[in-house]
Amino acid sequence: MLITPGHLLAQINSPADLKKLDQAQLVQLCQELRQFIIDNVSIYGGHFGASLGVTELTVALHYVYNAPYDQIVWDVGHQAYGHKILTGRRDVFHTNRVYKGISGFPKRKESEYDAFGVGHSSTSVSAALGMAVASQYKGLEDKQHVAIIGDGALTGGIAFEGLNNAGVSNTNLLIVLNDNCMSIDPNVGALKDYLTDITTSKTYNRFKDDVWNLLGKLSKIGKNAQEIVSKVDTALKSALLSQSNLFESLNLRYFGPVDGHDVDHLVAVLNDLKQIKGPKILHCVTVKGKGYGPSESGNKTTWHSPGTFDKITGEIHKKVHEKPQPPKYQDVFGHTLVELAKQNPKIIGITPAMPSGSSMNIMMKEMPDRAFDVGIAEQHAVTFSAGLATQGLIPFCNIYSSFMQRAYDQVIHDVCIQDLPVNFCLDRAGFAGSDGPTHHGAYDLAFFRCIPNMIVAAPMNESELRNLMFTAQLPRKGQAFSIRYPRGQGVMPQWRTPFEAVEIGTGRKLRDGEEVAILTVGHIGNYAAEACDNLDKQGLRVAHYDMRFVKPLDEKMLHEIFGRFHKIITVEDGCVQGGFGSAVLEFMSDHHYTAQVKRLGIPDQVIEHGEQPELYQECGFGPAGIEEAVHLLVESVSRPR
Amino acid sequence: MLITPGHLLAQINSPADLKKLDQAQLVQLCQELRQFIIDNVSIYGGHFGASLGVTELTVALHYVYNAPYDQIVWDVGHQAYGHKILTGRRDVFHTNRVYKGISGFPKRKESEYDAFGVGHSSTSVSAALGMAVASQYKGLEDKQHVAIIGDGALTGGIAFEGLNNAGVSNTNLLIVLNDNCMSIDPNVGALKDYLTDITTSKTYNRFKDDVWNLLGKLSKIGKNAQEIVSKVDTALKSALLSQSNLFESLNLRYFGPVDGHDVDHLVAVLNDLKQIKGPKILHCVTVKGKGYGPSESGNKTTWHSPGTFDKITGEIHKKVHEKPQPPKYQDVFGHTLVELAKQNPKIIGITPAMPSGSSMNIMMKEMPDRAFDVGIAEQHAVTFSAGLATQGLIPFCNIYSSFMQRAYDQVIHDVCIQDLPVNFCLDRAGFAGSDGPTHHGAYDLAFFRCIPNMIVAAPMNESELRNLMFTAQLPRKGQAFSIRYPRGQGVMPQWRTPFEAVEIGTGRKLRDGEEVAILTVGHIGNYAAEACDNLDKQGLRVAHYDMRFVKPLDEKMLHEIFGRFHKIITVEDGCVQGGFGSAVLEFMSDHHYTAQVKRLGIPDQVIEHGEQPELYQECGFGPAGIEEAVHLLVESVSRPR
Repeated sequence: MLITPGHLLAQINSPADLKKLDQAQLVQLCQELRQFIIDNVSIYGGHFGASLGVTELTVALHYVYNAPYDQIVWDVGHQAYGHKILTGRRDVFHTNRVYKGISGFPKRKESEYDAFGVGHSSTSVSAALGMAVASQYKGLEDKQHVAIIGDGALTGGIAFEGLNNAGVSNTNLLIVLNDNCMSIDPNVGALKDYLTDITTSKTYNRFKDDVWNLLGKLSKIGKNAQEIVSKVDTALKSALLSQSNLFESLNLRYFGPVDGHDVDHLVAVLNDLKQIKGPKILHCVTVKGKGYGPSESGNKTTWHSPGTFDKITGEIHKKVHEKPQPPKYQDVFGHTLVELAKQNPKIIGITPAMPSGSSMNIMMKEMPDRAFDVGIAEQHAVTFSAGLATQGLIPFCNIYSSFMQRAYDQVIHDVCIQDLPVNFCLDRAGFAGSDGPTHHGAYDLAFFRCIPNMIVAAPMNESELRNLMFTAQLPRKGQAFSIRYPRGQGVMPQWRTPFEAVEIGTGRKLRDGEEVAILTVGHIGNYAAEACDNLDKQGLRVAHYDMRFVKPLDEKMLHEIFGRFHKIITVEDGCVQGGFGSAVLEFMSDHHYTAQVKRLGIPDQVIEHGEQPELYQECGFGPAGIEEAVHLLVESVSRPR
Repeated sequence: MLITPGHLLAQINSPADLKKLDQAQLVQLCQELRQFIIDNVSIYGGHFGASLGVTELTVALHYVYNAPYDQIVWDVGHQAYGHKILTGRRDVFHTNRVYKGISGFPKRKESEYDAFGVGHSSTSVSAALGMAVASQYKGLEDKQHVAIIGDGALTGGIAFEGLNNAGVSNTNLLIVLNDNCMSIDPNVGALKDYLTDITTSKTYNRFKDDVWNLLGKLSKIGKNAQEIVSKVDTALKSALLSQSNLFESLNLRYFGPVDGHDVDHLVAVLNDLKQIKGPKILHCVTVKGKGYGPSESGNKTTWHSPGTFDKITGEIHKKVHEKPQPPKYQDVFGHTLVELAKQNPKIIGITPAMPSGSSMNIMMKEMPDRAFDVGIAEQHAVTFSAGLATQGLIPFCNIYSSFMQRAYDQVIHDVCIQDLPVNFCLDRAGFAGSDGPTHHGAYDLAFFRCIPNMIVAAPMNESELRNLMFTAQLPRKGQAFSIRYPRGQGVMPQWRTPFEAVEIGTGRKLRDGEEVAILTVGHIGNYAAEACDNLDKQGLRVAHYDMRFVKPLDEKMLHEIFGRFHKIITVEDGCVQGGFGSAVLEFMSDHHYTAQVKRLGIPDQVIEHGEQPELYQECGFGPAGIEEAVHLLVESVSRPR
């Protein structure tokens, strides 16, 4: 079902069309744009609250700036739906986040209006500054560069690095601070309090007015007072203007706060700012989910990405299942951590701004003194965890696999080189699904496996996840322990199995067979098991080993496998370059075995968005792909050369 | 030659001994400690300016705090020599940075006084906060946690993430800002200007005094004025105290600035701060190189780590060579970049705070509008480079291999997923030498190889480096291009060879042979060549291929090699797990070859500090190690199983 846009929106196929409107029509356009987003997301799903919150800002930016010549860089990109709809993608917007459809995030290959691809947060200042410096170097003095960044994203370290560098540049850079006190979950940290303070208490403005009023009155009193007044006035201006604001401290001219939902005023302000040279920041206060009752006043975390819903009642559609479903790995993690923490007082939970996504919120609610949301700050989360570990506590630091990329040095430098027993739970490992390439957890097996003092494990089901977590909290001398699992459901409706310690570096033989052995790590093993079942029906008995650990490898088991099999398939929900399969090849080479080894996994290319099964199929390691690989290997007559 | 300490210092074997001194003796102790450092470094080499700059701070901290119960966390660690000398390592201090000697950085395994190991910057706030939160959870209310961080390190994103989180904690955390306007090179960025401003112009304090003076006078004038005064006074206090300072903005109580060389005052201030609960910051102004004429007034970058010198004259010893020496790879990079930039106006240079270390300073001096030091900000450096690339410019972003770990997500998310042609020059790849494990560039081949849209190359000599850089600036459609080279000298005294384009993904056959082929990447190939020469003399003709690219591999050459040889040795100055050797194994497996492959490289453990040749030898891939590996392989009768 194609959504019908309002009559103004229907005419807008590019920002040029938008600029033909009278400014007086913008309020109406905003209403239509918002409605179009509500209509679409309610039926097709997707991110919601963020785009509603920047509707006026989006319209104003495209009304005032001259994209794609001017560069508009959206941070994170959750909020760019309005931008996409106004820049030629209205009629394909219903394919948003669908396999082969448009991306849920800005993407350079999709549109020239998407100045910088995104998905992870806090990059916009650095990217826009790079663009602005390039324009300055090229002598394009009229070219404008705008970064739109949320107050949550602003806590990410790279954003601060960018601000610090921007403050000494003299470029056409405007940073629009979209301040709504939310990322996916409510923001945390001192910066949030600060922004709330300058926004709501208005201490700063009140004070400024009072003093200037006073000085005005006093200057009439006498010559001596006048002199003092003049002196104080100078000092006051200098101090207040250049130092009393965090951003001014960093040499960024600060404007605002302004109401981010007053499109007329935004147009006026942005037009003014275009005339002001140099790096500057506009503080816009917005409401996440603005303009749709349930998302504006309801639970903003729920309405960040609600799935489909009834747009009239605001009721979010829930799938109804006839029989009990397996839980999400996320929830198994969340509940299990609390269960373990009740038994072991040393356990502490840490998440960088993903309490609801990772289900760390369960522990945060039950044990608020033992579970910490440290903000969008993966680097800090890891080093903070290392600090906890030095004091004998047992940190469980939960970070999505693709976000762990951001704390890679901290894992090496602060955890592994020091051989500290920190536990990492890597959520969203493997294909993330409709969030696409920025969120796929494709590389962690490869990038963790090469670090010393690191245990790399992946559970095949809920019970295994519980046992690995149980094992990770048992006393051990050193070593980081990484446990990776995918986004979404496991396979065990009855998942609360009793804890059992796992011997580190041991796998499980799941099925014996002949000729071919399949070696898997993690949840993807269930696909292999399905393939084995099918092959069994075809009379092909294939062995299946859940290796469970990528590091250390179960060498005893591998000796057994390579002693018996000359045709081996490895399957991993991760990159085939340097990952689990390569570890198996290293073992084979180091121990002088010879076998045909087919490595299945994510190929060496950027895999776009889609449902997980669609992506597994595309990359040839869904059940059908594994089955086919077995057939090919069985039929192959290739002899070692 | 053991250095004789002064008579006070000679009695101090632990902080407990220090605490026995009268406070009046501390000035004398500082003098002795400083002299001991000067005496040692002038003879044995090492970092210099940083430790001289914090001599008083070090003495005051150990006089006031109760380490190791209290946790003292040094950021970066260059500056911890005094700390080491006062905490039981005075008599082994001459082994500093020497193979099997003590580390040049704090290191947990070396001493219980080294609360947190370090080497990379900006981690101290996060680590100390983790410790402080742990103590709070354990109910250790008296336990103190101090992070000492420089103003340069403070620009690293993780430091800001830590401050943001610290500001909402209620822990016993003291952050000592060691403000000397320097990291290794002079600091850059808006934060530096800000700190200079609050320190030197004292606008803030002057203003505060003026206004309060004025208010005092005015309050006597009349009732109306009194009311206004009272109102303004309240607003003023509130505004000035809670908002007029960047750190107060982040809810950290700010104290200072104080003179970091007044040990008496420091002791008094630290004693006071111990009584104040909650997170707080003490701003200390220090002079890098303080107390030694040449380092205090001379070039501070030179005196950061001067090598050995004549302590009387301040003359830095320079090695005298009879014949022309090969240049450092660093200098080849620096000069070549300028040479290329003169021909190609699109080239831009970027370094995160390593202008002298990387020799980017050559371009910064010659082309100040085209070469940027962006501060200690690796993440920003990479995304900034990506921004430049979107505008058609050709960034050469130079980052040490181990520091590149800090920008890993930016390489994946901002460069490679977007397929942007950004060039990375990875300095200090492989063993870094005496800086030790935190600085070894051990993992880049493995962690870059698994990313799509990434070219991974390593030159074997100066001419190859020049040609790879030349190739990297030729127009190409996408793909990041990484060129890694080691710290130190190459092999070509006549290095200014004419530029030649290299076909991407091609290696060089250097020497033909029989039975065994050695495949190398990078400078380490020279060790293999030396081994081949020796073997030749023994009548063993071994083939040697400089593969040059780890990705894409030269498949044509590999087919030739695997077609002819069944005994193969790979050598890389990087981790053997997942690195170049593993890439060769993947090729072998994918193409159904069988061969005995011995992978030489950095083993899966933390390798400590030492001179590069010592470390190569330890890990078995110096010339002798390679030679031995060939003999073993030749003698081996192992048949494929």
